[in-house]
Amino acid sequence: MKHENVTLSMGAGGKLSAELVEEVFLPAYGNKICNTLDDAAELTIGKSSIAFTTDSFTVKPIFFPGGDIGTLAICGTANDLAVKGARPVAISVGFIIEDGFPMVNLKKIAASMQKAAASIGVKIVTGDTKVVGKKEADGIFINTSGIGATMPGMCISCTRAKCGDDIIITGTIADHGIAILNARQNLDFEPVIESDVAPVLPIVEAIADYGKYIHVMRDPTRGGIASVINEIAKASRVNVRLYENRLPVKKSVISCCNLFGLDPLYVPNEGKIVLFVDHRKTEDILEKIKSVPEGENATVIGKVLDTAFSQEIPPVHIETALGTRRFVPLLDSEPLPRIC
Amino acid sequence: MKHENVTLSMGAGGKLSAELVEEVFLPAYGNKICNTLDDAAELTIGKSSIAFTTDSFTVKPIFFPGGDIGTLAICGTANDLAVKGARPVAISVGFIIEDGFPMVNLKKIAASMQKAAASIGVKIVTGDTKVVGKKEADGIFINTSGIGATMPGMCISCTRAKCGDDIIITGTIADHGIAILNARQNLDFEPVIESDVAPVLPIVEAIADYGKYIHVMRDPTRGGIASVINEIAKASRVNVRLYENRLPVKKSVISCCNLFGLDPLYVPNEGKIVLFVDHRKTEDILEKIKSVPEGENATVIGKVLDTAFSQEIPPVHIETALGTRRFVPLLDSEPLPRIC
Repeated sequence: MKHENVTLSMGAGGKLSAELVEEVFLPAYGNKICNTLDDAAELTIGKSSIAFTTDSFTVKPIFFPGGDIGTLAICGTANDLAVKGARPVAISVGFIIEDGFPMVNLKKIAASMQKAAASIGVKIVTGDTKVVGKKEADGIFINTSGIGATMPGMCISCTRAKCGDDIIITGTIADHGIAILNARQNLDFEPVIESDVAPVLPIVEAIADYGKYIHVMRDPTRGGIASVINEIAKASRVNVRLYENRLPVKKSVISCCNLFGLDPLYVPNEGKIVLFVDHRKTEDILEKIKSVPEGENATVIGKVLDTAFSQEIPPVHIETALGTRRFVPLLDSEPLPRIC
Repeated sequence: MKHENVTLSMGAGGKLSAELVEEVFLPAYGNKICNTLDDAAELTIGKSSIAFTTDSFTVKPIFFPGGDIGTLAICGTANDLAVKGARPVAISVGFIIEDGFPMVNLKKIAASMQKAAASIGVKIVTGDTKVVGKKEADGIFINTSGIGATMPGMCISCTRAKCGDDIIITGTIADHGIAILNARQNLDFEPVIESDVAPVLPIVEAIADYGKYIHVMRDPTRGGIASVINEIAKASRVNVRLYENRLPVKKSVISCCNLFGLDPLYVPNEGKIVLFVDHRKTEDILEKIKSVPEGENATVIGKVLDTAFSQEIPPVHIETALGTRRFVPLLDSEPLPRIC
């Protein structure tokens, strides 16, 4: 390991996060299931095929326009299952709370969690609460783990992107990261930019019949769509071209990105899916996605090229509005800690 | 709620922990599965019956005689499954790490986790890492969630204790709590008191054939055997008598308890099981438990009485060596925060 200590950047979903996993966790825990590096593991118990995932949430501030840490914890974990082609069945909740945390806020968060869970019909079935001393945690951290039942006909994996695949995003990008940043800085932009935090299950259910044409699904959270598409390209050993003029970004979000000097490609989302689909079925799948409210702004943003993959060349580039091309690399670090 | 803020005692497994669950979480999440208050939830997916559990670990110090936070995280979650009569199949790991945490310690912890998991044949299949700023967490917190496959013939629940049941403990009590306390205070007792942290699966496997005679199993962690037996008595609406002169406690642990003014009944254990069993099979079950190294000090410590349960009277009492009786209530709080 090149580093003596764990640093903030290692938790931000960029290159250093990947290095931490590759250098510490894979050598320790390495097995076929966790080596695929997908957000959820696939397991077979008895004759049932299930997906299993975990996520901890440390977002700051805990309440923000469009949601709170509770909404985020349920949607984040349910979404990791949904993009693996699994219907969320049960969620566990682990709280770590700082001594002195206001009870009224805990009740608000618990209510948000229940509301999000009920909206997609998943149950919170087991939990645990730890309380640590003052200044030993920052308010509240939540871990949610989830079990999902794999939908028949779905075989989703980061390793399955193929030459010719179209790349779809199910809505506008960068909303969540910018909403958190504004809330953290107490910026009062009008209109208020809301987080896109939401369950993506309705979208996955709408396209379930096209299972075999859907090669990859990922929710582009930490590190934004750039990081997720880089991970997929690397895992599938393919090259990808994105089109700048097709990226759906709200005007207000673009303004904020300019203000902060952020590239929306790297800003987190919490209610979107990046899909790699068989190009022969792109139009059909896109139509299904647009048929649900959560997917009405879905659009094709890129494609998988038929050029040879090389470890030496960054696998993702973007064609700018000017017609020039630039690489979209995996960043070493990412400027937004504690975004989820 | 009587309290405006969350306090340390609410995370300590006593009466205030129960109040927090009853007043905040059950009203919010309440459903048949989580209302049983067992440490693991039972689910049916397809035709498979599984158990699902979660636990967060905030132990301080993270390294202690007999183990570390990694050993504790794997054993704690695997044990919650085992005492539900389920064989651990898959575990997820969620790290929350403070910026600046030494990489060498993270590697040590990851190795301990893998060693503990391998010893009982369970795989770590999925994970997540978040890093928070300096002073936003105390070193490292770990959440582990686990899935287990229910063993045939096992039907374990806190609500199943019956009149006449014998109560078995599988070994000496209070070792873990006293080991942590000594490590925290830098006390150099000789011999060093080691934590009992260990998987209890070998014991459960040894008695699996007696499934229908085993009514309740719990691992007496936070709050010690007193808290767990109180919870079981309340959930099953029965009264319990314990026998002081039968409690297995190491001499060195008794000395430390005296020094700190602690009652070993309330001090946490991390590798023991409290069982409520059909008294007609007590001897057979005890023999099986003693046949595995982890259970060689197992003994009967009490029984379920045939007196009528009443909400007004504490359901657990202990007969002292003198022949007197005193109540063993659920404590409001517990003097050992961050013990696991």
